[in-house]
Amino acid sequence: MLGLTTRFSFLALCVLQIDEEVAKLLELKAQLGGDDGKHQFVLKTAKGTRDYNPRQMAIREKVFNTIIGCFKRHGAETIDTPVFELKETLTGKYGEDSKLIYDLKDQGGELLSLRYDLTVPFARYLAMNKITNIKRYHIAKVYRRDNPAMTRGRYREFYQCDFDIAGQYDAMIPDAECLKIVHEILSELELGDFCIKMAWADVKKEMVNEKGLSEEVADQIGEYVSMQGGMDLAERLLQDQKLSQSKQACAGLSDIKLLFSYLQLLQVTDKVVFDLSLARGLDYYTGVIYEAVLTQTGVGLGSTEAQQEAHAEDSVSVGSVAGGGRYDGLVGMFDPKGRKVPCVGVSIGIERIFSIMEQKASAEKVRTTEVQVMVVSAQKNLLQERLKLVSDLWNGGVKAEMMYKKNPKLLSQLQHCEEAGIPLVAILGEQELKDGVVKLRVVSTREEFDICRADLLAEIRRRTSEA
Amino acid sequence: MLGLTTRFSFLALCVLQIDEEVAKLLELKAQLGGDDGKHQFVLKTAKGTRDYNPRQMAIREKVFNTIIGCFKRHGAETIDTPVFELKETLTGKYGEDSKLIYDLKDQGGELLSLRYDLTVPFARYLAMNKITNIKRYHIAKVYRRDNPAMTRGRYREFYQCDFDIAGQYDAMIPDAECLKIVHEILSELELGDFCIKMAWADVKKEMVNEKGLSEEVADQIGEYVSMQGGMDLAERLLQDQKLSQSKQACAGLSDIKLLFSYLQLLQVTDKVVFDLSLARGLDYYTGVIYEAVLTQTGVGLGSTEAQQEAHAEDSVSVGSVAGGGRYDGLVGMFDPKGRKVPCVGVSIGIERIFSIMEQKASAEKVRTTEVQVMVVSAQKNLLQERLKLVSDLWNGGVKAEMMYKKNPKLLSQLQHCEEAGIPLVAILGEQELKDGVVKLRVVSTREEFDICRADLLAEIRRRTSEA
Repeated sequence: MLGLTTRFSFLALCVLQIDEEVAKLLELKAQLGGDDGKHQFVLKTAKGTRDYNPRQMAIREKVFNTIIGCFKRHGAETIDTPVFELKETLTGKYGEDSKLIYDLKDQGGELLSLRYDLTVPFARYLAMNKITNIKRYHIAKVYRRDNPAMTRGRYREFYQCDFDIAGQYDAMIPDAECLKIVHEILSELELGDFCIKMAWADVKKEMVNEKGLSEEVADQIGEYVSMQGGMDLAERLLQDQKLSQSKQACAGLSDIKLLFSYLQLLQVTDKVVFDLSLARGLDYYTGVIYEAVLTQTGVGLGSTEAQQEAHAEDSVSVGSVAGGGRYDGLVGMFDPKGRKVPCVGVSIGIERIFSIMEQKASAEKVRTTEVQVMVVSAQKNLLQERLKLVSDLWNGGVKAEMMYKKNPKLLSQLQHCEEAGIPLVAILGEQELKDGVVKLRVVSTREEFDICRADLLAEIRRRTSEA
Repeated sequence: MLGLTTRFSFLALCVLQIDEEVAKLLELKAQLGGDDGKHQFVLKTAKGTRDYNPRQMAIREKVFNTIIGCFKRHGAETIDTPVFELKETLTGKYGEDSKLIYDLKDQGGELLSLRYDLTVPFARYLAMNKITNIKRYHIAKVYRRDNPAMTRGRYREFYQCDFDIAGQYDAMIPDAECLKIVHEILSELELGDFCIKMAWADVKKEMVNEKGLSEEVADQIGEYVSMQGGMDLAERLLQDQKLSQSKQACAGLSDIKLLFSYLQLLQVTDKVVFDLSLARGLDYYTGVIYEAVLTQTGVGLGSTEAQQEAHAEDSVSVGSVAGGGRYDGLVGMFDPKGRKVPCVGVSIGIERIFSIMEQKASAEKVRTTEVQVMVVSAQKNLLQERLKLVSDLWNGGVKAEMMYKKNPKLLSQLQHCEEAGIPLVAILGEQELKDGVVKLRVVSTREEFDICRADLLAEIRRRTSEA
């Protein structure tokens, strides 16, 4: 199961070490020359990290809402765990990638590390609280001291977005729901066409990794691995003479058949392919494994680059946007008595989805606030009236704002509405005040109506709920 | 401005050091004795941190929704910054409390620290991006290696929830909006009666901290400090002979008067008191400072304990649930040319609010999912029919779930609905399938209706939108 993944990690580590040596030398150089005693403050975020500006946050919020909406539709609860764990909680879970774990400085007390994913903290949480049944999602940032490639969307601080079902249940039912969730989320996000490739971790181990394979069987492997299909392929392989000699392979293939029958009922077989070439980097998978890829060219990130850039165990495939599988052994690693809690889950590749959504939105105007109406004044000395009106609107639950100036110009107030995409303007002038009305302006059409003050809230609600 | 705050911090540090020595000795003891070579895995979260379980997350989500709803109603954008910053970004910002900053281990490359609050990263963000105008909120976790008192709600990892307005505007208008926001949030959360105490950082410095005070004036201070009032007090102090000799005090008092006039228009003076005894721990405040406290006894946390437990600069008051003020100098500390960006903000004491809400909810049932309908079977061998129906419901946007068992008992399915607070049950049996209907059961009343399959979605929507 290692292979590709391991080699990428090793290369990444080498590059990382060179980078750090260069950084140290540059720092030394800065200290030696040119610095006339004055401390030059470095105004930047830590390497491999970034701020999210309001535009990025607006896109992020939209994506989160879609994904969380799906998780909630499926009845999931949510939990949160601390950003750091005891160092030993993470020890022995990530193989060679452990080198990429951020440790905290020993300032006395416990040795701590930043979480590397959400799966190990989830397993720790289940074991610690003796929970044997839960359907939960967890969206949070994780940390990897990897070689950053920020222009290609790879960061040292990045989001993971996991949905998992833990518990002893009848075969393949929760597994089928995970695939349904991937199907729903990718459809709703409208990222273009996609395909969910599915395999079975143990069948694969049996076929590919088992060392005692005869030469004849080894030759056969290439043939199997290149196969793709649906229920029919699983049936055909079940009747294959060589495979039928392996109990484990038969059990896996039967489960795949059962899974396909559930996927038909859940109406997602149009996108699911049984694909033995699929490999996922983590050793802890014990049953069905899957990965969703975008199939439309030109969407998202480039091909070979995307492959290199993918976090090792998240994916080795091109354009991967979700992945997961069954891991029945992980929780038992944390239980003092080794009690197992079977788990199956899916991780949505949310950082790549953010990148794609940002690219798609690059031409569009993205609103960064939800303001429905701007309170403006047509003449001077109306600050008090504006404050009174905006206060009434806030109290009425309307999203409203005004400029923090005593006497702003009408034009600059209207301009702000155009720029910020605010749909309505409530204009106060001396005439309006005398008449007990507010002039309501529709920004898109530039129409204006005098609205009686008492009817204003209802009118604003009517006009903004239409949109 | 230090005083109380500093003494608390110093004590906290002493206790911290003793705790850590004890921890080391206990660890050593564990290594020396009793351990028969077998590694005993410690199943816990890091000291001073906690997991949030689904119930806590449901309460947290409700509180966040109210607060974010208010920030959005006021037209705020949101940003996010990385969990760690360059160590030097935090250096020199927190005085003696800097000892409580978590550093990351030097694994090569930059020296990093976990963020200690959201205000310094915000100032760094503004300076780095040369932003001179923004109204933003930021809700995120911050980290302090403080002595934890978790039973009293103090953690080493905890949320901050900040709203700030940056920009050069006419006096007191953004300041007034911050107080309006505190008023709205505390009213909406229904935490009981509250009071917003307000002072002016520079007036206070002038009156209390200025070293050249004559003895006569020093005697007078006690009198001023015990004063509380509204606009009238500001007016009275403006006419005080001693104070009127200080330009800074006059300017401050005039601003307080102006602020009160805006607060009247914003309809919040019922809760706001001008209180010269108010002190806030951070040196960076340069204008109005304020703090909201709950005034109902028995709500929230105990009195003296609450005081000690409050994070030093968050509050020195009893029952503080929000605080903030004007800080016009901080952003300039990050700008290479020292260009100032005036800022005023408010920080909602969200951890204390969580604690109060959890206490209030302790008797109630808190739903941890939003499931509207559970798909159940009345007889055996109906798994396929349940999968088909639940899939139709998901596709129709209904929040639905079913048990992951082939043949669950009807009673255990209905019991799950009662426990999880699911309002509706869609029952499938052989008779219903024959008739092309679903039996819809209302959990609260135990009424049952046969609904034609084609009308089911509409019926569920109708019944759940009522609630």
